[in-house]
Amino acid sequence: MTKDSLIVLSGGMDSVTMLYDYKDRIAMALSCDYGSNHNAREIQFARLHCERLGIPHRVISLDFIVKNFHSSLLSGAGDVPSGSYNDENMRSTVVPFRNGIMLSVAAGFAEDMGLRYIMLANHAGDHSIYPDCRPDFVKAMSEATKAGTYNGVEVFAPYTNISKTDIARRGKTLGIDYAETWSCYRGGEHHCGTCGTCIERREALHNAGITDTTVYENIAH
Amino acid sequence: MTKDSLIVLSGGMDSVTMLYDYKDRIAMALSCDYGSNHNAREIQFARLHCERLGIPHRVISLDFIVKNFHSSLLSGAGDVPSGSYNDENMRSTVVPFRNGIMLSVAAGFAEDMGLRYIMLANHAGDHSIYPDCRPDFVKAMSEATKAGTYNGVEVFAPYTNISKTDIARRGKTLGIDYAETWSCYRGGEHHCGTCGTCIERREALHNAGITDTTVYENIAH
Repeated sequence: MTKDSLIVLSGGMDSVTMLYDYKDRIAMALSCDYGSNHNAREIQFARLHCERLGIPHRVISLDFIVKNFHSSLLSGAGDVPSGSYNDENMRSTVVPFRNGIMLSVAAGFAEDMGLRYIMLANHAGDHSIYPDCRPDFVKAMSEATKAGTYNGVEVFAPYTNISKTDIARRGKTLGIDYAETWSCYRGGEHHCGTCGTCIERREALHNAGITDTTVYENIAH
Repeated sequence: MTKDSLIVLSGGMDSVTMLYDYKDRIAMALSCDYGSNHNAREIQFARLHCERLGIPHRVISLDFIVKNFHSSLLSGAGDVPSGSYNDENMRSTVVPFRNGIMLSVAAGFAEDMGLRYIMLANHAGDHSIYPDCRPDFVKAMSEATKAGTYNGVEVFAPYTNISKTDIARRGKTLGIDYAETWSCYRGGEHHCGTCGTCIERREALHNAGITDTTVYENIAH
Protein backbone atom coordinates (compact mmCIF):
# COMPACT_ATOMS: atom_id res chain seq x y z
CA MET A 1 0.00 0.00 0.00
CA THR A 2 1.23 3.49 -0.77
CA LYS A 3 2.38 5.52 2.21
CA ASP A 4 0.52 8.69 1.25
CA SER A 5 -0.46 10.12 4.66
CA LEU A 6 0.72 12.00 7.71
CA ILE A 7 -1.15 11.59 11.00
CA VAL A 8 -1.63 14.17 13.75
CA LEU A 9 -0.83 11.96 16.74
CA SER A 10 -1.45 13.11 20.29
CA GLY A 11 -0.93 9.80 22.08
CA GLY A 12 -4.55 9.60 23.26
CA MET A 13 -6.95 6.71 22.63
CA ASP A 14 -8.38 8.07 19.38
CA SER A 15 -5.23 8.96 17.43
CA VAL A 16 -3.37 5.84 18.65
CA THR A 17 -6.27 3.71 17.37
CA MET A 18 -6.09 5.52 14.03
CA LEU A 19 -2.32 4.96 13.92
CA TYR A 20 -2.81 1.18 14.12
CA ASP A 21 -5.93 1.27 11.93
CA TYR A 22 -4.11 2.95 9.02
CA LYS A 23 -0.47 2.09 9.76
CA ASP A 24 0.23 0.86 6.24
CA ARG A 25 -0.64 4.27 4.78
CA ILE A 26 1.20 6.47 7.29
CA ALA A 27 4.55 7.91 6.20
CA MET A 28 5.02 10.07 9.29
CA ALA A 29 3.36 10.91 12.60
CA LEU A 30 3.40 14.47 13.92
CA SER A 31 2.98 15.40 17.59
CA CYS A 32 2.57 19.04 18.61
CA ASP A 33 3.78 20.20 22.00
CA TYR A 34 1.72 23.32 22.65
CA GLY A 35 2.36 23.47 26.38
CA SER A 36 -0.78 21.75 27.65
CA ASN A 37 -0.95 20.19 31.10
CA HIS A 38 -0.81 16.72 29.57
CA ASN A 39 1.40 17.08 26.47
CA ALA A 40 4.41 15.37 28.04
CA ARG A 41 2.29 12.40 29.20
CA GLU A 42 0.63 12.04 25.81
CA ILE A 43 3.75 12.37 23.70
CA GLN A 44 5.63 9.59 25.49
CA PHE A 45 2.90 7.20 24.30
CA ALA A 46 2.89 8.68 20.79
CA ARG A 47 6.62 7.95 20.64
CA LEU A 48 6.24 4.42 22.01
CA HIS A 49 3.68 3.36 19.41
CA CYS A 50 5.60 4.89 16.50
CA GLU A 51 8.75 3.07 17.57
CA ARG A 52 6.82 -0.18 17.86
CA LEU A 53 5.32 0.21 14.37
CA GLY A 54 8.47 1.61 12.75
CA ILE A 55 6.71 4.84 11.75
CA PRO A 56 8.87 8.02 11.69
CA HIS A 57 7.74 10.40 14.42
CA ARG A 58 8.33 14.13 14.66
CA VAL A 59 7.60 16.29 17.72
CA ILE A 60 7.42 20.05 17.16
CA SER A 61 6.94 22.95 19.53
CA LEU A 62 3.98 25.31 19.15
CA ASP A 63 4.86 27.19 22.32
CA PHE A 64 3.18 30.40 21.18
CA ILE A 65 -0.04 28.68 22.25
CA VAL A 66 0.80 28.28 25.94
CA LYS A 67 2.48 31.70 25.92
CA ASN A 68 -0.56 33.54 24.52
CA PHE A 69 -3.82 31.59 24.60
CA HIS A 70 -6.19 31.16 27.53
CA SER A 71 -7.54 27.71 28.42
CA SER A 72 -7.70 25.55 31.54
CA LEU A 73 -5.88 22.94 29.46
CA LEU A 74 -2.87 25.27 29.45
CA SER A 75 -2.91 26.75 32.92
CA GLY A 76 -2.41 23.83 35.31
CA ALA A 77 -4.18 20.74 36.65
CA GLY A 78 -6.11 22.71 39.28
CA ASP A 79 -8.02 24.66 36.64
CA VAL A 80 -9.39 21.62 34.78
CA PRO A 81 -13.04 21.02 35.77
CA SER A 82 -14.30 17.72 37.12
CA GLY A 83 -17.48 16.15 35.75
CA SER A 84 -18.96 14.73 32.57
CA TYR A 85 -17.28 15.29 29.22
CA ASN A 86 -20.45 16.73 27.76
CA ASP A 87 -21.01 19.37 30.40
CA GLU A 88 -20.73 23.01 29.57
CA ASN A 89 -17.92 23.25 32.13
CA MET A 90 -15.61 21.47 29.66
CA ARG A 91 -15.83 24.65 27.60
CA SER A 92 -12.92 26.04 29.63
CA THR A 93 -10.66 23.33 28.17
CA VAL A 94 -11.05 24.59 24.59
CA VAL A 95 -7.74 25.71 23.08
CA PRO A 96 -8.64 28.26 20.39
CA PHE A 97 -8.59 26.70 16.90
CA ARG A 98 -6.16 24.01 18.04
CA ASN A 99 -7.13 21.46 15.37
CA GLY A 100 -7.04 24.15 12.67
CA ILE A 101 -3.51 25.08 13.67
CA MET A 102 -2.33 21.47 13.88
CA LEU A 103 -3.94 20.56 10.54
CA SER A 104 -2.35 23.58 8.83
CA VAL A 105 1.06 22.64 10.17
CA ALA A 106 0.43 19.03 9.10
CA ALA A 107 -0.57 20.25 5.63
CA GLY A 108 2.74 22.09 5.37
CA PHE A 109 4.65 18.93 6.27
CA ALA A 110 2.57 16.83 3.85
CA GLU A 111 3.12 19.31 1.00
CA ASP A 112 6.85 19.38 1.77
CA MET A 113 7.06 15.57 1.78
CA GLY A 114 4.86 14.98 -1.27
CA LEU A 115 2.02 13.34 0.70
CA ARG A 116 -1.71 13.55 -0.15
CA TYR A 117 -3.55 13.12 3.16
CA ILE A 118 -3.42 14.41 6.72
CA MET A 119 -5.22 12.25 9.28
CA LEU A 120 -7.08 13.60 12.29
CA ALA A 121 -8.81 11.43 14.92
CA ASN A 122 -11.67 13.75 15.91
CA HIS A 123 -14.90 11.92 16.75
CA ALA A 124 -18.63 12.54 17.26
CA GLY A 125 -18.36 12.97 21.03
CA ASP A 126 -16.22 16.08 20.52
CA HIS A 127 -18.77 17.98 18.43
CA SER A 128 -20.78 19.68 21.15
CA ILE A 129 -17.80 21.30 22.88
CA TYR A 130 -15.08 21.72 20.26
CA PRO A 131 -16.08 23.54 17.06
CA ASP A 132 -12.84 22.49 15.35
CA CYS A 133 -13.90 18.82 15.60
CA ARG A 134 -17.20 19.18 13.73
CA PRO A 135 -17.93 17.83 10.23
CA ASP A 136 -18.39 21.26 8.63
CA PHE A 137 -15.01 22.38 10.00
CA VAL A 138 -13.26 19.25 8.73
CA LYS A 139 -14.83 19.68 5.29
CA ALA A 140 -13.90 23.36 4.98
CA MET A 141 -10.38 22.75 6.30
CA SER A 142 -9.88 19.99 3.76
CA GLU A 143 -10.96 22.33 0.98
CA ALA A 144 -8.50 24.94 2.27
CA THR A 145 -5.54 22.54 2.40
CA LYS A 146 -6.46 21.20 -1.04
CA ALA A 147 -6.70 24.67 -2.58
CA GLY A 148 -3.59 25.97 -0.82
CA THR A 149 -1.11 23.24 -1.84
CA TYR A 150 0.37 22.06 -5.13
CA ASN A 151 -0.12 18.51 -3.99
CA GLY A 152 -3.84 18.95 -3.24
CA VAL A 153 -3.45 17.82 0.37
CA GLU A 154 -6.76 16.66 1.92
CA VAL A 155 -7.93 16.00 5.47
CA PHE A 156 -8.85 12.37 6.19
CA ALA A 157 -10.95 12.08 9.34
CA PRO A 158 -12.84 8.76 9.21
CA TYR A 159 -13.87 8.82 12.89
CA THR A 160 -15.72 12.14 12.57
CA ASN A 161 -19.17 10.60 12.93
CA ILE A 162 -18.50 7.64 15.20
CA SER A 163 -18.33 7.57 19.00
CA LYS A 164 -15.37 7.03 21.30
CA THR A 165 -16.90 3.67 22.22
CA ASP A 166 -16.88 2.73 18.53
CA ILE A 167 -13.22 3.73 18.39
CA ALA A 168 -12.44 1.58 21.43
CA ARG A 169 -14.22 -1.37 19.81
CA ARG A 170 -12.07 -0.86 16.75
CA GLY A 171 -8.96 -0.74 18.94
CA LYS A 172 -9.99 -3.96 20.64
CA THR A 173 -9.99 -5.81 17.32
CA LEU A 174 -6.60 -4.24 16.56
CA GLY A 175 -5.18 -5.55 19.84
CA ILE A 176 -4.37 -2.13 21.31
CA ASP A 177 -3.56 -1.96 25.05
CA TYR A 178 -5.18 1.33 26.04
CA ALA A 179 -3.14 1.46 29.24
CA GLU A 180 -0.47 2.61 26.78
CA THR A 181 -2.42 5.79 25.90
CA TRP A 182 -3.05 9.00 27.80
CA SER A 183 -6.33 10.93 28.24
CA CYS A 184 -6.28 12.90 31.51
CA TYR A 185 -6.33 16.68 30.98
CA ARG A 186 -4.66 17.21 34.36
CA GLY A 187 -1.46 15.47 33.26
CA GLY A 188 -0.38 14.15 36.65
CA GLU A 189 1.61 11.00 37.39
CA HIS A 190 -1.54 8.89 36.97
CA HIS A 191 -4.94 9.56 35.35
CA CYS A 192 -6.96 11.60 37.85
CA GLY A 193 -10.19 9.70 37.16
CA THR A 194 -12.46 12.71 37.76
CA CYS A 195 -11.92 15.17 34.89
CA GLY A 196 -14.20 15.00 31.85
CA THR A 197 -11.68 13.17 29.67
CA CYS A 198 -11.01 10.53 32.34
CA ILE A 199 -14.74 9.92 32.73
CA GLU A 200 -15.20 9.72 28.95
CA ARG A 201 -12.25 7.28 28.72
CA ARG A 202 -13.61 4.98 31.41
CA GLU A 203 -17.07 4.95 29.86
CA ALA A 204 -15.79 4.17 26.36
CA LEU A 205 -13.61 1.29 27.58
CA HIS A 206 -16.45 -0.08 29.71
CA ASN A 207 -19.00 0.20 26.90
CA ALA A 208 -16.63 -1.51 24.47
CA GLY A 209 -16.22 -4.43 26.90
CA ILE A 210 -12.52 -3.75 27.52
CA THR A 211 -10.99 -4.44 30.94
CA ASP A 212 -9.68 -1.03 32.01
CA THR A 213 -6.19 -1.45 33.50
CA THR A 214 -5.57 2.31 33.68
CA VAL A 215 -4.35 3.50 37.09
CA TYR A 216 -6.76 6.22 38.30
CA GLU A 217 -6.06 8.37 41.37
CA ASN A 218 -9.77 8.60 42.16
CA ILE A 219 -12.84 6.98 40.72
CA ALA A 220 -15.78 9.30 40.06
CA HIS A 221 -19.20 7.80 40.69
CA MET B 1 -14.85 52.26 14.81
CA THR B 2 -14.78 48.85 16.50
CA LYS B 3 -11.39 47.22 16.70
CA ASP B 4 -12.54 43.80 15.53
CA SER B 5 -9.52 42.56 13.57
CA LEU B 6 -6.06 41.07 13.78
CA ILE B 7 -3.63 41.52 10.87
CA VAL B 8 -0.92 39.14 9.67
CA LEU B 9 1.89 41.66 9.22
CA SER B 10 5.14 40.74 7.50
CA GLY B 11 6.59 44.22 7.10
CA GLY B 12 6.48 44.11 3.30
CA MET B 13 4.73 46.64 1.04
CA ASP B 14 1.38 44.87 0.94
CA SER B 15 0.73 44.20 4.62
CA VAL B 16 2.13 47.59 5.68
CA THR B 17 -0.29 49.25 3.26
CA MET B 18 -3.15 47.21 4.70
CA LEU B 19 -2.06 48.19 8.23
CA TYR B 20 -2.47 51.89 7.39
CA ASP B 21 -5.55 51.26 5.24
CA TYR B 22 -7.48 49.58 8.08
CA LYS B 23 -5.67 50.91 11.15
CA ASP B 24 -8.89 51.92 12.92
CA ARG B 25 -10.14 48.32 12.90
CA ILE B 26 -6.91 46.58 13.92
CA ALA B 27 -6.66 45.43 17.54
CA MET B 28 -3.37 43.61 17.08
CA ALA B 29 -0.71 42.85 14.47
CA LEU B 30 0.94 39.43 14.36
CA SER B 31 4.34 38.78 12.77
CA CYS B 32 5.59 35.21 12.33
CA ASP B 33 9.30 34.47 12.39
CA TYR B 34 9.58 31.19 10.49
CA GLY B 35 13.28 31.40 9.82
CA SER B 36 13.22 32.89 6.30
CA ASN B 37 16.23 34.66 4.84
CA HIS B 38 14.45 37.99 5.21
CA ASN B 39 12.33 37.64 8.39
CA ALA B 40 14.61 39.80 10.52
CA ARG B 41 14.63 42.59 7.89
CA GLU B 42 10.86 42.50 7.47
CA ILE B 43 9.97 42.34 11.14
CA GLN B 44 11.95 45.45 12.06
CA PHE B 45 9.67 47.42 9.72
CA ALA B 46 6.56 45.68 11.05
CA ARG B 47 7.56 46.80 14.53
CA LEU B 48 8.31 50.36 13.41
CA HIS B 49 4.91 50.91 11.83
CA CYS B 50 3.00 49.39 14.74
CA GLU B 51 4.85 51.64 17.17
CA ARG B 52 4.08 54.65 15.00
CA LEU B 53 0.36 53.80 14.83
CA GLY B 54 0.07 52.66 18.45
CA ILE B 55 -1.07 49.18 17.43
CA PRO B 56 -0.06 46.28 19.71
CA HIS B 57 2.40 44.01 17.91
CA ARG B 58 3.26 40.40 18.70
CA VAL B 59 6.12 38.43 17.13
CA ILE B 60 5.96 34.65 17.46
CA SER B 61 8.37 31.91 16.42
CA LEU B 62 7.28 29.20 13.97
CA ASP B 63 10.76 27.70 13.85
CA PHE B 64 9.49 24.23 12.96
CA ILE B 65 9.23 25.65 9.42
CA VAL B 66 12.92 26.42 8.90
CA LYS B 67 13.87 23.25 10.76
CA ASN B 68 11.75 20.97 8.56
CA PHE B 69 10.50 22.52 5.31
CA HIS B 70 12.41 22.91 2.05
CA SER B 71 12.40 26.26 0.21
CA SER B 72 15.00 28.62 -1.19
CA LEU B 73 13.37 31.25 1.03
CA LEU B 74 14.62 29.28 4.02
CA SER B 75 18.04 28.09 2.90
CA GLY B 76 20.07 31.22 2.31
CA ALA B 77 20.40 34.18 -0.05
CA GLY B 78 22.44 32.23 -2.60
CA ASP B 79 19.56 29.85 -3.33
CA VAL B 80 17.02 32.58 -4.21
CA PRO B 81 16.65 32.81 -7.99
CA SER B 82 17.12 36.04 -9.93
CA GLY B 83 14.58 37.12 -12.53
CA SER B 84 10.96 38.10 -12.98
CA TYR B 85 8.45 37.46 -10.19
CA ASN B 86 6.19 35.58 -12.54
CA ASP B 87 8.77 33.11 -13.74
CA GLU B 88 8.49 29.45 -12.91
CA ASN B 89 11.85 29.71 -11.13
CA MET B 90 10.12 31.58 -8.28
CA ARG B 91 8.51 28.23 -7.53
CA SER B 92 11.54 27.36 -5.36
CA THR B 93 10.62 30.20 -2.99
CA VAL B 94 7.30 28.62 -2.02
CA VAL B 95 7.10 27.77 1.69
CA PRO B 96 4.59 24.91 1.97
CA PHE B 97 1.15 26.19 3.08
CA ARG B 98 2.70 29.23 4.75
CA ASN B 99 -0.40 31.42 4.57
CA GLY B 100 -2.59 28.56 5.78
CA ILE B 101 -0.37 28.12 8.82
CA MET B 102 -0.20 31.85 9.56
CA LEU B 103 -3.97 32.30 9.14
CA SER B 104 -4.69 29.36 11.45
CA VAL B 105 -2.40 30.79 14.10
CA ALA B 106 -4.03 34.20 13.60
CA ALA B 107 -7.49 32.60 13.93
CA GLY B 108 -6.41 31.13 17.28
CA PHE B 109 -5.29 34.55 18.50
CA ALA B 110 -8.49 36.20 17.21
CA GLU B 111 -10.68 33.58 18.91
CA ASP B 112 -8.72 34.00 22.13
CA MET B 113 -9.08 37.80 22.00
CA GLY B 114 -12.74 37.87 20.96
CA LEU B 115 -12.01 39.33 17.49
CA ARG B 116 -14.02 38.62 14.33
CA TYR B 117 -11.59 39.10 11.42
CA ILE B 118 -8.07 38.13 10.42
CA MET B 119 -6.55 40.27 7.70
CA LEU B 120 -4.18 38.95 5.02
CA ALA B 121 -2.55 41.12 2.33
CA ASN B 122 -2.32 38.58 -0.49
CA HIS B 123 -2.80 40.08 -3.96
CA ALA B 124 -3.50 39.08 -7.57
CA GLY B 125 0.17 38.98 -8.57
CA ASP B 126 0.77 36.12 -6.15
CA HIS B 127 -1.81 33.77 -7.65
CA SER B 128 0.25 32.08 -10.33
CA ILE B 129 3.05 30.94 -8.01
CA TYR B 130 1.55 30.65 -4.53
CA PRO B 131 -1.57 28.45 -4.22
CA ASP B 132 -2.21 29.75 -0.69
CA CYS B 133 -2.75 33.27 -2.07
CA ARG B 134 -5.58 32.39 -4.49
CA PRO B 135 -9.24 33.36 -4.07
CA ASP B 136 -10.48 29.79 -3.66
CA PHE B 137 -7.96 29.18 -0.90
CA VAL B 138 -8.92 32.37 0.91
CA LYS B 139 -12.61 31.50 0.68
CA ALA B 140 -12.16 27.94 1.95
CA MET B 141 -9.83 29.04 4.74
CA SER B 142 -12.35 31.63 5.85
CA GLU B 143 -15.05 28.96 5.98
CA ALA B 144 -12.72 26.76 8.06
CA THR B 145 -11.88 29.49 10.59
CA LYS B 146 -15.57 30.43 10.80
CA ALA B 147 -16.69 26.84 11.38
CA GLY B 148 -13.86 26.05 13.80
CA THR B 149 -14.30 28.96 16.25
CA TYR B 150 -17.02 30.01 18.67
CA ASN B 151 -16.52 33.58 17.52
CA GLY B 152 -17.02 32.80 13.82
CA VAL B 153 -13.64 34.26 12.84
CA GLU B 154 -13.42 35.13 9.14
CA VAL B 155 -10.57 35.95 6.76
CA PHE B 156 -10.63 39.49 5.36
CA ALA B 157 -8.40 39.79 2.29
CA PRO B 158 -9.54 42.84 0.31
CA TYR B 159 -6.43 42.96 -1.92
CA THR B 160 -6.96 39.41 -3.26
CA ASN B 161 -7.96 40.58 -6.73
CA ILE B 162 -5.94 43.78 -7.15
CA SER B 163 -2.34 44.17 -8.29
CA LYS B 164 0.74 45.24 -6.37
CA THR B 165 0.69 48.45 -8.38
CA ASP B 166 -2.86 49.10 -7.16
CA ILE B 167 -1.66 48.52 -3.60
CA ALA B 168 1.21 50.98 -4.10
CA ARG B 169 -1.26 53.56 -5.45
CA ARG B 170 -3.35 53.06 -2.33
CA GLY B 171 -0.24 53.49 -0.16
CA LYS B 172 0.63 56.68 -1.99
CA THR B 173 -2.68 58.24 -0.99
CA LEU B 174 -2.08 57.02 2.57
CA GLY B 175 1.32 58.73 2.66
CA ILE B 176 3.37 55.57 3.18
CA ASP B 177 7.14 55.79 2.68
CA TYR B 178 7.92 52.45 1.06
CA ALA B 179 11.61 52.80 1.91
CA GLU B 180 10.32 51.76 5.34
CA THR B 181 9.22 48.33 4.07
CA TRP B 182 11.16 45.21 3.09
CA SER B 183 10.68 42.99 0.03
CA CYS B 184 13.99 41.30 -0.88
CA TYR B 185 13.90 37.50 -0.46
CA ARG B 186 17.69 37.44 0.01
CA GLY B 187 17.54 39.45 3.23
CA GLY B 188 20.94 41.15 2.97
CA GLU B 189 21.92 44.54 4.31
CA HIS B 190 20.23 46.24 1.35
CA HIS B 191 17.64 45.05 -1.21
CA CYS B 192 19.55 42.98 -3.81
CA GLY B 193 17.62 44.46 -6.76
CA THR B 194 17.74 41.26 -8.82
CA CYS B 195 15.52 38.67 -7.12
CA GLY B 196 11.90 38.34 -8.23
CA THR B 197 10.49 40.25 -5.30
CA CYS B 198 12.91 43.17 -5.78
CA ILE B 199 11.96 43.37 -9.45
CA GLU B 200 8.25 43.20 -8.60
CA ARG B 201 8.74 45.93 -5.97
CA ARG B 202 10.54 48.27 -8.36
CA GLU B 203 7.92 47.78 -11.06
CA ALA B 204 5.00 48.42 -8.72
CA LEU B 205 6.53 51.62 -7.32
CA HIS B 206 7.43 52.81 -10.83
CA ASN B 207 3.97 52.04 -12.24
CA ALA B 208 2.30 53.80 -9.31
CA GLY B 209 4.36 56.94 -10.01
CA ILE B 210 6.26 56.73 -6.72
CA THR B 211 9.89 57.86 -6.50
CA ASP B 212 11.73 54.74 -5.38
CA THR B 213 14.25 55.66 -2.67
CA THR B 214 15.05 52.03 -1.82
CA VAL B 215 18.78 51.27 -1.77
CA TYR B 216 19.43 48.39 -4.21
CA GLU B 217 22.76 46.57 -4.45
CA ASN B 218 22.29 45.98 -8.17
CA ILE B 219 19.74 47.10 -10.69
CA ALA B 220 18.39 44.40 -13.01
CA HIS B 221 17.68 45.54 -16.58
